[in-house]
Amino acid sequence: MARASDGPMKKLPTLRGRTIVNLFAEDSTRTRISFEAAAKRLSADVINFGAKGSSLSKGESLKDTALTLQAMGADAVIIRHSASGAPVRLADSAWMSGSVINAGDGTHEHPSQALLDAFTIRKHCTKGGGDLAGLRIGIVGDVLHSRVARSNVLLLALLGAHVTLIAPPTLLPFGVENWPVDISYDFDSVLPSLDAVMMLRVQQERMSDLFFPNAREYSRYFGLNRDRMLMMKPNSIVMHPGPMNRGLEITADVADSARSVIVEQVSNGVSVRMAILYLLLAGAPSEIGANT
Amino acid sequence: MARASDGPMKKLPTLRGRTIVNLFAEDSTRTRISFEAAAKRLSADVINFGAKGSSLSKGESLKDTALTLQAMGADAVIIRHSASGAPVRLADSAWMSGSVINAGDGTHEHPSQALLDAFTIRKHCTKGGGDLAGLRIGIVGDVLHSRVARSNVLLLALLGAHVTLIAPPTLLPFGVENWPVDISYDFDSVLPSLDAVMMLRVQQERMSDLFFPNAREYSRYFGLNRDRMLMMKPNSIVMHPGPMNRGLEITADVADSARSVIVEQVSNGVSVRMAILYLLLAGAPSEIGANT
Amino acid sequence: MARASDGPMKKLPTLRGRTIVNLFAEDSTRTRISFEAAAKRLSADVINFGAKGSSLSKGESLKDTALTLQAMGADAVIIRHSASGAPVRLADSAWMSGSVINAGDGTHEHPSQALLDAFTIRKHCTKGGGDLAGLRIGIVGDVLHSRVARSNVLLLALLGAHVTLIAPPTLLPFGVENWPVDISYDFDSVLPSLDAVMMLRVQQERMSDLFFPNAREYSRYFGLNRDRMLMMKPNSIVMHPGPMNRGLEITADVADSARSVIVEQVSNGVSVRMAILYLLLAGAPSEIGANT
Repeated sequence: MARASDGPMKKLPTLRGRTIVNLFAEDSTRTRISFEAAAKRLSADVINFGAKGSSLSKGESLKDTALTLQAMGADAVIIRHSASGAPVRLADSAWMSGSVINAGDGTHEHPSQALLDAFTIRKHCTKGGGDLAGLRIGIVGDVLHSRVARSNVLLLALLGAHVTLIAPPTLLPFGVENWPVDISYDFDSVLPSLDAVMMLRVQQERMSDLFFPNAREYSRYFGLNRDRMLMMKPNSIVMHPGPMNRGLEITADVADSARSVIVEQVSNGVSVRMAILYLLLAGAPSEIGANT
Repeated sequence: MARASDGPMKKLPTLRGRTIVNLFAEDSTRTRISFEAAAKRLSADVINFGAKGSSLSKGESLKDTALTLQAMGADAVIIRHSASGAPVRLADSAWMSGSVINAGDGTHEHPSQALLDAFTIRKHCTKGGGDLAGLRIGIVGDVLHSRVARSNVLLLALLGAHVTLIAPPTLLPFGVENWPVDISYDFDSVLPSLDAVMMLRVQQERMSDLFFPNAREYSRYFGLNRDRMLMMKPNSIVMHPGPMNRGLEITADVADSARSVIVEQVSNGVSVRMAILYLLLAGAPSEIGANT
Repeated sequence: MARASDGPMKKLPTLRGRTIVNLFAEDSTRTRISFEAAAKRLSADVINFGAKGSSLSKGESLKDTALTLQAMGADAVIIRHSASGAPVRLADSAWMSGSVINAGDGTHEHPSQALLDAFTIRKHCTKGGGDLAGLRIGIVGDVLHSRVARSNVLLLALLGAHVTLIAPPTLLPFGVENWPVDISYDFDSVLPSLDAVMMLRVQQERMSDLFFPNAREYSRYFGLNRDRMLMMKPNSIVMHPGPMNRGLEITADVADSARSVIVEQVSNGVSVRMAILYLLLAGAPSEIGANT
């Protein structure tokens, strides 16, 4: 998919005639248009179903929403929901026979982000080999509220990487000691050993006494700036799921530096989401579809 | 259209090159995406034109909105409007030569809903014959504010069905004695004779002293629950235009029962709307279109 | 493009496989759907990226928004922004290699509107010749806040037309004496000499003591009504960028008269925007695209 996206004709006929619904009960322009671009490159029809004014805003109607989308012929539903577990509820129910793709649920998971992150790390930090064994990856910041962190921990550990969570104790989730990770409160001591540093977005509204004193303190201890970047080892990379708070968790010079693969993560996001849609939807019926 | 939707390749080239505008001055995700799915399956281009921030929010500019859409090359405008009569105003004016499709106007009409309901009844309650002659159909609930009820009364009576409105007197419109229907205030006495029971959605904001004391009272007298369903005759069906208030006008066990055709109504909605678009737009120009 | 739009098959395969993003940080249904219709007629994929809830609402993230859209494979970004200069910032930066199209920025410019206006004037007021030399064009009303006026002044003067701005002194911008225009405070004295009269939309919220006493006064001095239209010379035309305030800057009978080309401006808008997209995007890669 990545190679197809680099070619002169990006559009593939693979999913012609398939209907994909973007069911976004939470605003997320970035993820929504990444999935939309991926679906359209595969020639699928995309229907956007926002949160505002729809029955979906109330959790209790998720069942009827699902039955309705299924009845309308949705081949896949890409769901972003504020309730942790909404996508798995949809997928495990008998409400839909179509595919369900989690585009981020509450503070739970964001699996397509983890897949694009792993893909990006593989391209940069390994010699083209299969897995991430032996790589050291740091995830830095508000792990507590981050579905990106949760999904990455699960996937990166599965692929053999050694993951270190770097955060103040107040921003680590309960039970983190049972996760397949190391934990550090000291960014500077871990940083020189990392192959990839994944900075998490700070949710400004969480910057309060409850979790952390203030933005300046946060930046000093857990922000990635030029001085810290100079401590990183050769060929190591800087990642961020976006959107960035430049000047808070990452400085502008680091974000725009040669070490940064942040923009490439976005490109890889479209390719990885094309792959997700292809693997879920391309099959016997779509082969027929592709021929017509 | 229904058969095409069941096949492996749902997409037909019939309306390639045609532009269809969804002009939704009122929120209605359900009807909007049903029309959008129908148009895309016929390969038309769909442009969504919401209410928020558009000039359409003010009734006086309907003329200029129409002239604008016409000038942009809209072959059809699907309009949902809070003002009863807005679609017929658009269709009867010289403002547009393109087709105008009423997707629900005020408390007036919702004709595509009636067509999909009639299609659903025909599939279940007749032996594949042409019309609905001799069938007994009950429409239950807030008839006063329901455009679904109005359109169904007109269409079902035209097709030969015998329609009974079942509602408290406060929720029946002025002049209903001149409609081609029977009226009953007693659900239980009519229910055993019905071939199809069409439950109307209760608009929660209308549940007040003005129309009905409270939700519990409403459910007791006019809700469809398991006990009532047991009184229905064999092969009779339960319908609802959606979205349902489970536990208010219909209980969950009835909505999910074998008698319920509610989900099938949604599927039929896409097929019927494909047929509407096909009949209005497919013709000499589109035959040329289909060949290119 | 205009001829293609008149034919039976409006859709051209030219931009198949190209992705165009509508980045509208300000509401503008009319311009957005004009560009969307233009892009879809050229078979491009269109992704709508609204302002609400997106990171774009904050000016400082324009860079990251641009980098993101570029990374997702946007071949062109059509941007409407409340900040004057946002599009040129995007175009001149190294953030994007794709094309940037200004769909209106602050009170600065609205170039595609000027192009469609010039195209409309050429069709009506010249003998099919190349430029607008010798034509007299009046732009009437709130020039101060109008990006339409600014872009038209630049383009029409470049094409050789003689432009007169007609407005109260309070609604003329600082430095207007250096623009390539004449200025008049007296509509009636200039009107008989004009080949085209371009009425500007009055922003109702600007109708206050600060700029003009009240709507009635405005209409009397700067509105175009039937009496004034009778003073216009033969074959001269009435224009308006829309949406109109009927009864304020223009009366309904003038707007709907034979002199009015207001609806045709809308049609021409789609053709001109198709031409813009074609000239920017059709090239070597798209020739390959058109063949697949």
